[in-house]
Amino acid sequence: MTMSNTTGGRRRPPTIHDVAREAGVSRGTVSRVLNGGHYVSPAAQEAVNAAIRKTGYVVNRHARSLITGRSDSVGFLLTEPQERFFEDPNFNVLLRGCTQALAAHDIALLLMLAGTEDERRRITRYITAGHVDGVLLVSSHSGDPVAQELREAGVPLVACGKPIGLGSKVSYVAADDRDGARDMVRHLLSLGRRRIGVVTGPLDTPGGVERLAGYREVLAEAGIEADERLVVPGDYSRASGEAGAERLLERAPDVDAVFVASDLMAQGVLAALQRAGRRVPEDVAVGGFDDSPAAVSASPELTTIRQPWDRISAEMVRVLIAQMGGEDQAAVILPTELVVREST
Amino acid sequence: MTMSNTTGGRRRPPTIHDVAREAGVSRGTVSRVLNGGHYVSPAAQEAVNAAIRKTGYVVNRHARSLITGRSDSVGFLLTEPQERFFEDPNFNVLLRGCTQALAAHDIALLLMLAGTEDERRRITRYITAGHVDGVLLVSSHSGDPVAQELREAGVPLVACGKPIGLGSKVSYVAADDRDGARDMVRHLLSLGRRRIGVVTGPLDTPGGVERLAGYREVLAEAGIEADERLVVPGDYSRASGEAGAERLLERAPDVDAVFVASDLMAQGVLAALQRAGRRVPEDVAVGGFDDSPAAVSASPELTTIRQPWDRISAEMVRVLIAQMGGEDQAAVILPTELVVREST
Repeated sequence: MTMSNTTGGRRRPPTIHDVAREAGVSRGTVSRVLNGGHYVSPAAQEAVNAAIRKTGYVVNRHARSLITGRSDSVGFLLTEPQERFFEDPNFNVLLRGCTQALAAHDIALLLMLAGTEDERRRITRYITAGHVDGVLLVSSHSGDPVAQELREAGVPLVACGKPIGLGSKVSYVAADDRDGARDMVRHLLSLGRRRIGVVTGPLDTPGGVERLAGYREVLAEAGIEADERLVVPGDYSRASGEAGAERLLERAPDVDAVFVASDLMAQGVLAALQRAGRRVPEDVAVGGFDDSPAAVSASPELTTIRQPWDRISAEMVRVLIAQMGGEDQAAVILPTELVVREST
Repeated sequence: MTMSNTTGGRRRPPTIHDVAREAGVSRGTVSRVLNGGHYVSPAAQEAVNAAIRKTGYVVNRHARSLITGRSDSVGFLLTEPQERFFEDPNFNVLLRGCTQALAAHDIALLLMLAGTEDERRRITRYITAGHVDGVLLVSSHSGDPVAQELREAGVPLVACGKPIGLGSKVSYVAADDRDGARDMVRHLLSLGRRRIGVVTGPLDTPGGVERLAGYREVLAEAGIEADERLVVPGDYSRASGEAGAERLLERAPDVDAVFVASDLMAQGVLAALQRAGRRVPEDVAVGGFDDSPAAVSASPELTTIRQPWDRISAEMVRVLIAQMGGEDQAAVILPTELVVREST
């Protein structure tokens, strides 16, 4: 009798040694690929992946987690009220992308909704107790202590959008908000519009701040004097877009275009303009931001700025897994794109 | 110098002893209240809760979890595709209720979306590794192995709706689906309708099976012969309601009422009827099921069967916490209510 499981009628499952032999690399290289691919050449990574497919090797996560102390899970933490999560289709898109990117690493995603201070305290307690290996943080308002606390506890963390006030101390992936806003306002100017209003995002979020900054910059560059009656605040909800447009029409009835800092708010703006008898785009051109499902379900369909959600989620997961493997913080900024539809 | 923290300028935080003294009960009683309230009289429970409020006692969950091995968290596991989660407002309502009920126990809720076999495998691995203390299982189709696996792993578990095939081996909380369906079909009969169609839920879910059974029973009791052309299947999605109504109109053009097994599907039925030029309720009366937000956002507003979502979520949490405290399985069936609006 022998203890080796290579004998006997049953084929033994392939091991990491088999993968290394097949790929023609060391066991250490295979291990590094499995743990995030640091310090591995693209060629070796490719060879290991091919060998994994060929041998049918399956990582025994459960056994590994006993050794590594890992949970093989990542939290997707949204510090917003539950209602916003269901209302705003961006979250759905981002969540799907992150789930898929993590699936390729056989890592489970746990969704954490923490809209109240109590919920944030409970979730922070859970995370810092080590039940997840890292956190994808979405929609962190400034003053939100979660990012700071998790960072201090040494939890690998990647934010969606730059966490205000934490600078480069926290990894993040963001679309180029300012550049996107600049593209939209330049587009509105190119249509001959000169009384361009803006409904901003919350000004304690990077998207809120940067999109407004882009708007101001382009108008200043065009030699158009700033008029604060044309600037109204929103909070990314549809209702705030509707209220914002009503306020704009009241304060600046000659408004001939509106740049709205999210597509969902822009739906509200369209509703208010319609009620006021203004035609879109003839009387007032409307530009959104996100290119979320809300842009094409709007009537007329929205001209908007496309955020590259697939790339954002893929990069968030890539940076997080690198960090879980010991790599330093990183920020990734991705370009946006103007999408012209019916509303301008 | 003394080690006692009752001396000195700083007030020490209240302890479980202070709570016991204030409530006039033993420390063990306080502990039992904190751990779910088993074997505690309502009067003692009330006294302890009052004492907790008065003393400002805060459970040190983190210290406790080190002792008890608990994570002070519960998973809300949805074995449905992510899209359904965002589409169907029932989930939003149920999730909010469970979050609130758990908050009262200072327990964190983790949302787990497991629509694919791979996702279910990863989440089951995570749960059985002990990262949550219990699971609220939502929308388990029969043949779904998750409930069975968690049960075998000894994970405290409460399902929303009776898990088909597992009978009383798994705790569950459900509305009385059959009785609700009976009420709706009796209501349609009372309006003089005789060609009553039905768009069912998925027939591998308890809601699908029981609501159809209620429909059949009442028609049989009224002496109306069964006509299978009037029975079309749906999957609870809006689109399946729309397709179902088209099929009904084709197979039984004389249909004068439709009982639809969910409000979201009923929205689809309304759309199809409108397209076919049938007036609701004049030509075809439509009854839904759930009394979800979809019922009042429909046009005309839906007559429906109210599921007591607040009670369902509260009972799910109550039964789960009891089970985490060592209690046996239990099933809770809650009554439904007919809500008459414009569509009948």
